[in-house]
Amino acid sequence: MADLLLRNIRPYAGAPTDMLLQAGRIARIGKGLTAPEGVAVEDGRGDIVLPGLVEAHTHLDKSLWGLPWYVNEVGPKLLDKIDNERMNKRALGIDPYRQSARQSIQSSLMGSTHIRSHVDVDTEHGMWGIEGVMRTRDEYRDIVDIEIVAFPQSGLLRRPGTLELMDEAMKLGAEVVGGLDPCTIDRDPKGHLDAVFALCQRYGKPLDIHLHEPGEVGAFSMDMIIERTRALGMQGKVTISHAFCLGTPDPALIDPLIAGLAELDIAIMTTGPASRPAPPVKKLLEAGIRVCSGSDGIRDTWGPYGNADMLERAMFIGLRNNFRRDDELRLGLDVCTCQGARVMEVAGYGIDEGFIADLVLVPGETVAEAIVTRSPRRRVIKRGKIVARDGVSIRTAP
Amino acid sequence: MADLLLRNIRPYAGAPTDMLLQAGRIARIGKGLTAPEGVAVEDGRGDIVLPGLVEAHTHLDKSLWGLPWYVNEVGPKLLDKIDNERMNKRALGIDPYRQSARQSIQSSLMGSTHIRSHVDVDTEHGMWGIEGVMRTRDEYRDIVDIEIVAFPQSGLLRRPGTLELMDEAMKLGAEVVGGLDPCTIDRDPKGHLDAVFALCQRYGKPLDIHLHEPGEVGAFSMDMIIERTRALGMQGKVTISHAFCLGTPDPALIDPLIAGLAELDIAIMTTGPASRPAPPVKKLLEAGIRVCSGSDGIRDTWGPYGNADMLERAMFIGLRNNFRRDDELRLGLDVCTCQGARVMEVAGYGIDEGFIADLVLVPGETVAEAIVTRSPRRRVIKRGKIVARDGVSIRTAP
Repeated sequence: MADLLLRNIRPYAGAPTDMLLQAGRIARIGKGLTAPEGVAVEDGRGDIVLPGLVEAHTHLDKSLWGLPWYVNEVGPKLLDKIDNERMNKRALGIDPYRQSARQSIQSSLMGSTHIRSHVDVDTEHGMWGIEGVMRTRDEYRDIVDIEIVAFPQSGLLRRPGTLELMDEAMKLGAEVVGGLDPCTIDRDPKGHLDAVFALCQRYGKPLDIHLHEPGEVGAFSMDMIIERTRALGMQGKVTISHAFCLGTPDPALIDPLIAGLAELDIAIMTTGPASRPAPPVKKLLEAGIRVCSGSDGIRDTWGPYGNADMLERAMFIGLRNNFRRDDELRLGLDVCTCQGARVMEVAGYGIDEGFIADLVLVPGETVAEAIVTRSPRRRVIKRGKIVARDGVSIRTAP
Repeated sequence: MADLLLRNIRPYAGAPTDMLLQAGRIARIGKGLTAPEGVAVEDGRGDIVLPGLVEAHTHLDKSLWGLPWYVNEVGPKLLDKIDNERMNKRALGIDPYRQSARQSIQSSLMGSTHIRSHVDVDTEHGMWGIEGVMRTRDEYRDIVDIEIVAFPQSGLLRRPGTLELMDEAMKLGAEVVGGLDPCTIDRDPKGHLDAVFALCQRYGKPLDIHLHEPGEVGAFSMDMIIERTRALGMQGKVTISHAFCLGTPDPALIDPLIAGLAELDIAIMTTGPASRPAPPVKKLLEAGIRVCSGSDGIRDTWGPYGNADMLERAMFIGLRNNFRRDDELRLGLDVCTCQGARVMEVAGYGIDEGFIADLVLVPGETVAEAIVTRSPRRRVIKRGKIVARDGVSIRTAP
């Protein structure tokens, strides 16, 4: 692994300094460092240096990135979208390997160094998605770390055979067990949650469950997740994604849930959605809860939005949470960097000596400015190596 | 006024065609047009052509654009923000002429051809804002049309002397009367509304009133606005900006208001705010109500967001209203173009022979793609003249 000396960079837009990257780690930070013999030197030109961005919730297997424009005429219900996608995936050419590789490169160009991807497991396509994204995970390891969540997108119990496929996905090497709306999709919260927690227990893996259910029904499902996390000793091993129910403006409903999440170190993922109730990021962070974020689906049959830019996502979190002060905007960035790493159990993440050398360089005066302008990514660094310069990756997409 | 032949452009991403612009209007649209003698030809390279974007709600006089980064440490209340701004405006160097000129050029670069700007009128700064933005309006008329709303940002009745200044602003040449939260800021809804409607009557000008008041109190104020619009025969002459109360999820509250707005042709302005209740755009359009949009404040002491990009604003409206289908995204674009022109009473706006030649060219396969990628503005055309090419304006900022 080649070493690198970064000169004239500003950690979090602070005073200019230098940084020596050795063996994939930040070896030293300080002004006027000299490059050891044979170590390349990169002039940071006074750019801001931030921890590599963390894309903690996306769907690498289903993006239409690089394919002809998909004209969306899908019906309004959740099941319309689920069925439309499953039934048209092959005809549209959504090959999970190729598409996940394309999105991963886009993600890396935008400064992400870690990705957690939910990957569909269903009776129509079996292991197609898991195998495709595993191949991308292995082939593109030099530019980004990918963690795979086996995700029963079409339902777990309502489509017999899916649970067995989830088991197979975990055997194949998925790193996280997924789940989905135990009340409103599977219509059997006890059955669904018992099944996914059992998979976690069998494989010793964490859980990341989609919970779109709003209001009281979402609160009910969340409470059942909290209950099982406690009973099974899975503290620190559970993430609840979306968690719209936490956006209910009723402290009597959500404060007990927040207390439970904090007690059991259950993490929350929010995209900062504009059209749905959203978890209150500042309140969760103040309660000591790990909060991460992600792009969710990027240009897929569900919707056309998304560009894999987690700096823009920090802006969306700011807009959604009415963050206006510079210190508030910084919270959004933390969610999209170090907090995400904590959720993905990446130790030693951030800007400090000894930490992983996953970094991104952006021009700008302040961190808040970099966020709201979605400052261009000048350099993206993965394990001490420059993997993208000015929007050009060292890897090409299939 | 020089004429221009645009070749190989695709109106709304349709089939490629040509377009002859003469005397500031779209003279002809058709394949294989020949340029009359002496008329310049511009190759559109297959770009999408859209109507010029319409920035129907911003605050040109208060942007910090081009100034050093303002570290926002302002308190959480609305009055904190109002007082902070009024008191620090001069010290921060927010000269209304210079700053409005800077933002207007940025707006033009992003494809906007019309701007409605609210401009502060208060006892601290008098006509400073109005005179500054009037100067910009006059000096930059070649690239963008600016309409000025006299805006009592600090309150109308609660600060004696403001009403007289509003009167002075209208005399000076403001085109629209502004107002602000008659209950929660002035705490005298009858007094406030009677005063602003009287100004409209005295000067024969339309009204555009900020109404942030949510829920029942906003509905009450809106009802009083509807009542006065009817009584004074001001159909088609009133805009309500923000109108958060219309985001209340209670048809019993909002349906009667929507009926009143439709009956009296009262327009609604929404930014598609992620953190506040928002007017339901599709429902309003279906009721025949004119709906426009705007950036609101851009990088000011209120908050750091904004880049004057009304194509991005169309995306924000889509995200806020959960628009996913291509036909829904197009609604967002219409709000940011032709609907905005209707609110500003610009006749003959859109892409058709005889209409004003205010246009923007963007690359892309479909309109939805142009919106979600916020496609670069290749050419911006104002009254038939190219005023920006690839992000470079024909004008420079002071």
